[in-house]
Amino acid sequence: MITGKNYIGNSQSQLGDKRFTTHNPITNKENEWEFVEASENEVNKALELATHAYTLYQKISGKERAVFLNTIADEIEALGDSLIEVYTAETGLPEGRAKGERGRTIGQLRSFANLVAEGSWVNATIDTAVPDRQPIPKADLRKMMFSLGPVVVFGASNFPLAYSTAGGDTASALAAGCPVVVKSHPMHAGTGELVAKAIITAAQKTNMPNGVFSNLNSSGIEVGMQLVENPLTKAVGFTGSIKGGRALYDIASKRAEPIPVFAEMGSVNPVVLLPEALISKGEGWAKTYAGSITLGTGQFCTKPGLLFALESSELDDFIAVLSNEIIKIDPSCMLHPVIEANYSRNKEKMLRQPGLTITANYDEDVESNFARQAVVKVSGANFISNPELHQEVFGPFSMVISCSNMNEMENAIKSMDGQLTGTIISEKNEINNYEKLVDVLQNGVGRLIFNGVPTGVEVCPSMQHGGPYPASTDSRFTAVGIHAIDRWVRPVSFQNWPNRLLPDELKNENPLNIDRLLNGKSTKEAIE
Amino acid sequence: MITGKNYIGNSQSQLGDKRFTTHNPITNKENEWEFVEASENEVNKALELATHAYTLYQKISGKERAVFLNTIADEIEALGDSLIEVYTAETGLPEGRAKGERGRTIGQLRSFANLVAEGSWVNATIDTAVPDRQPIPKADLRKMMFSLGPVVVFGASNFPLAYSTAGGDTASALAAGCPVVVKSHPMHAGTGELVAKAIITAAQKTNMPNGVFSNLNSSGIEVGMQLVENPLTKAVGFTGSIKGGRALYDIASKRAEPIPVFAEMGSVNPVVLLPEALISKGEGWAKTYAGSITLGTGQFCTKPGLLFALESSELDDFIAVLSNEIIKIDPSCMLHPVIEANYSRNKEKMLRQPGLTITANYDEDVESNFARQAVVKVSGANFISNPELHQEVFGPFSMVISCSNMNEMENAIKSMDGQLTGTIISEKNEINNYEKLVDVLQNGVGRLIFNGVPTGVEVCPSMQHGGPYPASTDSRFTAVGIHAIDRWVRPVSFQNWPNRLLPDELKNENPLNIDRLLNGKSTKEAIE
Repeated sequence: MITGKNYIGNSQSQLGDKRFTTHNPITNKENEWEFVEASENEVNKALELATHAYTLYQKISGKERAVFLNTIADEIEALGDSLIEVYTAETGLPEGRAKGERGRTIGQLRSFANLVAEGSWVNATIDTAVPDRQPIPKADLRKMMFSLGPVVVFGASNFPLAYSTAGGDTASALAAGCPVVVKSHPMHAGTGELVAKAIITAAQKTNMPNGVFSNLNSSGIEVGMQLVENPLTKAVGFTGSIKGGRALYDIASKRAEPIPVFAEMGSVNPVVLLPEALISKGEGWAKTYAGSITLGTGQFCTKPGLLFALESSELDDFIAVLSNEIIKIDPSCMLHPVIEANYSRNKEKMLRQPGLTITANYDEDVESNFARQAVVKVSGANFISNPELHQEVFGPFSMVISCSNMNEMENAIKSMDGQLTGTIISEKNEINNYEKLVDVLQNGVGRLIFNGVPTGVEVCPSMQHGGPYPASTDSRFTAVGIHAIDRWVRPVSFQNWPNRLLPDELKNENPLNIDRLLNGKSTKEAIE
Repeated sequence: MITGKNYIGNSQSQLGDKRFTTHNPITNKENEWEFVEASENEVNKALELATHAYTLYQKISGKERAVFLNTIADEIEALGDSLIEVYTAETGLPEGRAKGERGRTIGQLRSFANLVAEGSWVNATIDTAVPDRQPIPKADLRKMMFSLGPVVVFGASNFPLAYSTAGGDTASALAAGCPVVVKSHPMHAGTGELVAKAIITAAQKTNMPNGVFSNLNSSGIEVGMQLVENPLTKAVGFTGSIKGGRALYDIASKRAEPIPVFAEMGSVNPVVLLPEALISKGEGWAKTYAGSITLGTGQFCTKPGLLFALESSELDDFIAVLSNEIIKIDPSCMLHPVIEANYSRNKEKMLRQPGLTITANYDEDVESNFARQAVVKVSGANFISNPELHQEVFGPFSMVISCSNMNEMENAIKSMDGQLTGTIISEKNEINNYEKLVDVLQNGVGRLIFNGVPTGVEVCPSMQHGGPYPASTDSRFTAVGIHAIDRWVRPVSFQNWPNRLLPDELKNENPLNIDRLLNGKSTKEAIE
């Protein structure tokens, strides 16, 4: 069922010399399948095919692209249990998570299908001519969004479906009219191949041009670098580490033609516990946060890594409960031995930081690749002065920052890099007294959460998943929700263009019946 | 009236050692005013003030920002003839042009004022809670655009008002809620100071925070580099050369926190003359294009620098008329001796390219700083093989590319870098036969024009001014029209946020009565 080959458009190919396997972290054994890393020749071939496919695909209507996206969703569903089995064998994640993520992936595909089938997303903007305007006539101008060209998508280690082969980046780019070349994540290359096969089958069933999608295996960094360096690539989507995302951003920025890179990277997701909430509901929140920190073995990009509060006996109580509760949780398996090794190393490095108190550190024996959770405490002053304490520890680790006053807390929050999320835990009306703190937090994050946990990223139009650097490389865009499509498109204006040659979205008749900004007013009306 | 000092927020300052003057290219003499280049200390001070002002300015309502923008427009109008006199003395451009550009500048300010006073531009997107959703409740999420922070704007040499101190970049950034620090263009520093004074006066009259605007003098590259390197800067707007724009882009990309740079740079604006149009209206188009090439001494970013047509006796006739007509036009004054020297050097370099035929080259004596227009002809094959022929010659110079067939023309157009505009000159219905050519052209430009000249950039919502690199550094945005505001904002989501603490744009009551995407539908309705 799994061949280990690359998909170069509709054809399978294995020209490379390097082979690799995926690992089952639960059994701690290599899986049976062997994957052939893409050669430079195959990288180039995939992008040449994508570039040719682009000339055809960009002209395919939104309704037809929607059929393609929905067929991808159908084909992924049709993979059935085999997908779930390979997913769990390559990630150690439980079946329930696999099925939930499959549902999310399919939901995203169908959501982008609906978006482009309806059609208003192109932001059609029309200003009709004013031939008798003085001193010169005003031309007829009409603008809409068009796809950028071939997009390279890097699969994420921690979301083998929803942020990988057919995840949000691929779904949004295909919806926009961009062919996609995926650099499959080496830790779940089998899952990737199955999903790639579903996309290729869907492309063939719906008569999409060959090259609209390719899937390349890669265990090192070469394939990814070649993909971003190639002048045929017009944009990049990435989810992963700051180091990896920044390296790709740097390559893209140095090209003769720089291209946009949207990299969703690191985040420690600060949480502020306001004093009254700490007093009246500290114990409850401590239990809730023990769960949020360890959810999915702390491998969510929105795991709460930092908890800010004022030093007090209630904070001591909170830390005691949090530490006690988190130790009670059974350790769970990380995605891969490399990820567990990184977690252990980064955690140990953190534990050695000066002035830090370890309040919980699971020290019993665990199975291979299981992560031992920990909670630590530092002072606000220490946090501000030591940037090492700001680093993300990917896994079930969290830090409580005990601040001597609100001013110190504001400065501690100001001293951090950009974040995906920021959370305020507050009693009713208590937050009213902390306007400045909220402002400081808001300026550093993409999403503010009130009285909740940051884990969980709802897929809906109002979601912002992204944030000031290094949460993402461009805070002006989101990786989740329909507006993720905006990353892959650019406006094109048509001046005095013959009506019959305009794209349907801009024709007088408004044949697609979409919302348009016509002479400054939003309307579905046709133009007389 | 002109002091030569910098504005660091509301205060004038002159701590630097370097002084410089502006030049009157008509009289070929230095103007009387002496400008003090900003010191590094002043650069830092301006950005510190801007950062502090940002914390206040970002919370000022759209209606109040609109009053500020309209007051800037009023204050620029109130400068009266003194502005026009300084403008013409610093540019050599005629009074009519100065007044036209002033009108455009004021129009842009008022247009952004209307946009933010109305308020729907923030793209408010709301998905209300679904508490009983299975398997987990759906949170309430609400998203809107917020300003990025301090923006650095580089004034353009060729538009001392509309793309400089209070030009489109400044107007859109201030509208978005971003403080602005302008690096004034050294060739029109006096014009810049007058406009800066108008902005500062408006800021004081409307009680805007000190630091919402600063204006820095600079004759070299240091001030600009310092501004972009400074970590307090959050975005950059630039209009100018590819070399200058790319240098700033590279600095911004290498920062610890990379920031967006929107640089509107070079473009040669290809024009395609289809065969029937050439046969039936060649002479008329030749005369029209002689005017477009020399308009404003060829100093518009959308000057047609390349004309593509099939080799034929009609093309020979077209070139003969174009060459004859363009020579009849009286040479005019360029903006500055440096610009004229660059034009002469670049033109001479072009004229020495192998296989090129000079069909017009004004060779009579002209006054200092006047540009001598030229037209040349090359073959399509030559154009494809020699990238030197693709370079922009800023000034009244244009090249006709004589192609042996349409395939060669398509390849010639494909071989070019990205452009602001692409034009098709066609008889009625003739264009129908050239779908592939139009596709190729569209993929390389920001704006397509039918049967017109590319000079003239209408300020309206449907204008796209920008294009694939190097026309601009990010083709996903425009420098002209209301959507230019999108460069300076990022979305922020609020999850389960208390209604009373939400920004007005996102409150249940919709107190601003703006358009919002509410549970997937565009509406002004309040939420029950």
